[in-house]
Amino acid sequence: MDIYQESLKKHREWRGKIEMKPRAEVYTNEELSLAYTPGVAEACRAIHNDVNQSYELTRRWNTVPVITDGTAILGLGDIGPEAGMPVMEGKCALFKAFGDVDAYPLCIKSKDTEDIIKTIKLLSGSFGGVNLEDISAPRCFEIERRLKEELDIPVFHDDQHGTAIVIAAALLNALKLAGKRIEDIKVVVNGAGAAGIAISKYLLSFGVKELISVDRLGILVKGDTRFNPAQQELANISNPNMVKGTLSDAMKGADVFVGVSVANCVSKDMVRSMADKPIIFTCANPIPEISREDALEAGAFIVGTGSSQFPNQINNVLVFPGLFRGALDVRASTINDEMMKAASLGIASCVSPEELSRDYILPKAYDKKAHEAVAKAVKEEAIRTGVNRI
Amino acid sequence: MDIYQESLKKHREWRGKIEMKPRAEVYTNEELSLAYTPGVAEACRAIHNDVNQSYELTRRWNTVPVITDGTAILGLGDIGPEAGMPVMEGKCALFKAFGDVDAYPLCIKSKDTEDIIKTIKLLSGSFGGVNLEDISAPRCFEIERRLKEELDIPVFHDDQHGTAIVIAAALLNALKLAGKRIEDIKVVVNGAGAAGIAISKYLLSFGVKELISVDRLGILVKGDTRFNPAQQELANISNPNMVKGTLSDAMKGADVFVGVSVANCVSKDMVRSMADKPIIFTCANPIPEISREDALEAGAFIVGTGSSQFPNQINNVLVFPGLFRGALDVRASTINDEMMKAASLGIASCVSPEELSRDYILPKAYDKKAHEAVAKAVKEEAIRTGVNRI
Repeated sequence: MDIYQESLKKHREWRGKIEMKPRAEVYTNEELSLAYTPGVAEACRAIHNDVNQSYELTRRWNTVPVITDGTAILGLGDIGPEAGMPVMEGKCALFKAFGDVDAYPLCIKSKDTEDIIKTIKLLSGSFGGVNLEDISAPRCFEIERRLKEELDIPVFHDDQHGTAIVIAAALLNALKLAGKRIEDIKVVVNGAGAAGIAISKYLLSFGVKELISVDRLGILVKGDTRFNPAQQELANISNPNMVKGTLSDAMKGADVFVGVSVANCVSKDMVRSMADKPIIFTCANPIPEISREDALEAGAFIVGTGSSQFPNQINNVLVFPGLFRGALDVRASTINDEMMKAASLGIASCVSPEELSRDYILPKAYDKKAHEAVAKAVKEEAIRTGVNRI
Repeated sequence: MDIYQESLKKHREWRGKIEMKPRAEVYTNEELSLAYTPGVAEACRAIHNDVNQSYELTRRWNTVPVITDGTAILGLGDIGPEAGMPVMEGKCALFKAFGDVDAYPLCIKSKDTEDIIKTIKLLSGSFGGVNLEDISAPRCFEIERRLKEELDIPVFHDDQHGTAIVIAAALLNALKLAGKRIEDIKVVVNGAGAAGIAISKYLLSFGVKELISVDRLGILVKGDTRFNPAQQELANISNPNMVKGTLSDAMKGADVFVGVSVANCVSKDMVRSMADKPIIFTCANPIPEISREDALEAGAFIVGTGSSQFPNQINNVLVFPGLFRGALDVRASTINDEMMKAASLGIASCVSPEELSRDYILPKAYDKKAHEAVAKAVKEEAIRTGVNRI
């Protein structure tokens, strides 16, 4: 039985990968009087007098919904809100297992940007933060931007920023091995959807000077109006030499290739055209942009993939549990760039100089130490940048 | 320390009366591949092909949100969505403890009927049913009616129907002791808000012929346009003798008084004016319409209250866990009147003829057998009336 059929079988057994667990006893008259009526009225009154008490007297302080509209589920695309639920539940299980965050899955039956924003805003008093998940571009940009503006709790679109954070961590460690400085490298990011654009902007903010973003229409160049607004905005701040053409043109002389695109779009010749010690991160799922085997044969120095079957899995499970743990612990009002960078550095730091090798640039997704390191780094940075509220 | 201060202290210790618990292991590469990527894609595909599979492959089958807008919280009134959360969390803990239902608390930051309806509709693909809670009249009628029409999952407003179901159960057992038939009695229901109207309609459907509903303006009489539309609708089907006046007029010769109103509005003289063996149910919280002591002194035959400190606690905790358990078990598309009546009969049947006494007409709220009896009765009635989908 392959992994898909085995997983389907397990899903039939689980009938849900999460469940609720009471933390209060309710099995006697006295317990009922304390946890429910009449005693509970006092906690209600306390929150009515000071809404901040909702973080002290309810689970709000630790609660984060995982919210999707089902439009960009894994590699499957727009399969609808109910069909996205197995991914959301999985994510909730990971939130608890690695970050001790209480996450609920919520699937919204609308693709309308305003509907999604309004639904989340109306529910926001129940939560300590919001994790957006698998919402397609370009709507996800507007939804995230507006929610960040209009809510006073952290809002995080994992597909964009989680991926960017873990790729930066991988890159930082890969560059140590390649002996290159981030300011000197040329990076190609293939795929300019939600993840690709976020990765590109994030790597630029980390000090990359020459970054070329490529999408189906070719290389993003400033002034090319065929691209959508989010892509044009990226074109304005990347590709300083105004390189034009296709992916293979972009890759000539590149030090780093990051793929968040489609299966088999990179050839061995393209890898051969790259600079010395090329670093290749292929995140297309389930079939990567180029197989690890082919990439290595063509001279790749380091290969990272989306798969747990190979070394260097680039998995944003390394990010979100610790990131929200850190943010929730100090009741952060937002997740800012500095906190995200701290998360990348925290992940990178979990691989010691002695352990660091071409086949070990990232901690394992289930490495408890890594999640703790992320939480600690994010928490400290939230305090340093003053977005903590406790 | 009184119960309120003790409860507040417990709430500070709990910091949330519920939490999430993963049901899937995610601590190795293989486990991650089954519960999350890449294996999870197969469960997504299966639901995409047949949305009914969402009941088999996710927790939807067992998931019910407890949703409020914070407008009618306990006896506290409109204290806002965040301040309602301690009650919602308590209810979620009770759902799990007594019905093994996975319930999430959701507080909506709007009092607009359309906002609330739309929010719940947009989220409905995540749930197997919806429990509305502490939403004020008359908006709660429209919200419930529309959601019942427009959703294919059970929608239940506990303040209305949960209260009605448990009062009917109490009444059925009290009448056995009083030796009266439901067709022959005169019932006064004081308070014509959400609960009072629902109780009145429900008792009429159970066979009560003479029922008088009273509100702040006095007795509801057909044609009196001072009452709101929901009250006028009730006036049209109750008070067949067109009795006019105040509560004390209504109570003359009544066999049963049901109070879902305000503290101390019933005098001993009013009780003395009732028929032989008067039955008094006082549900105002925390101070009842008349104290149990006073009611007994004035000749009450049976007294039920909202408090766990006295015999015969009328507690809708006896209803909702088993009711949803039964409905979810057969994937009911709705909760119909027949299922509610089955719940009342189920609760009443948990007190055996040997146990039945003036101080024991209802099982205890934490009686496991009672919840099982409700679940069984509701499930069977769902099947009999054909609203089951498995």
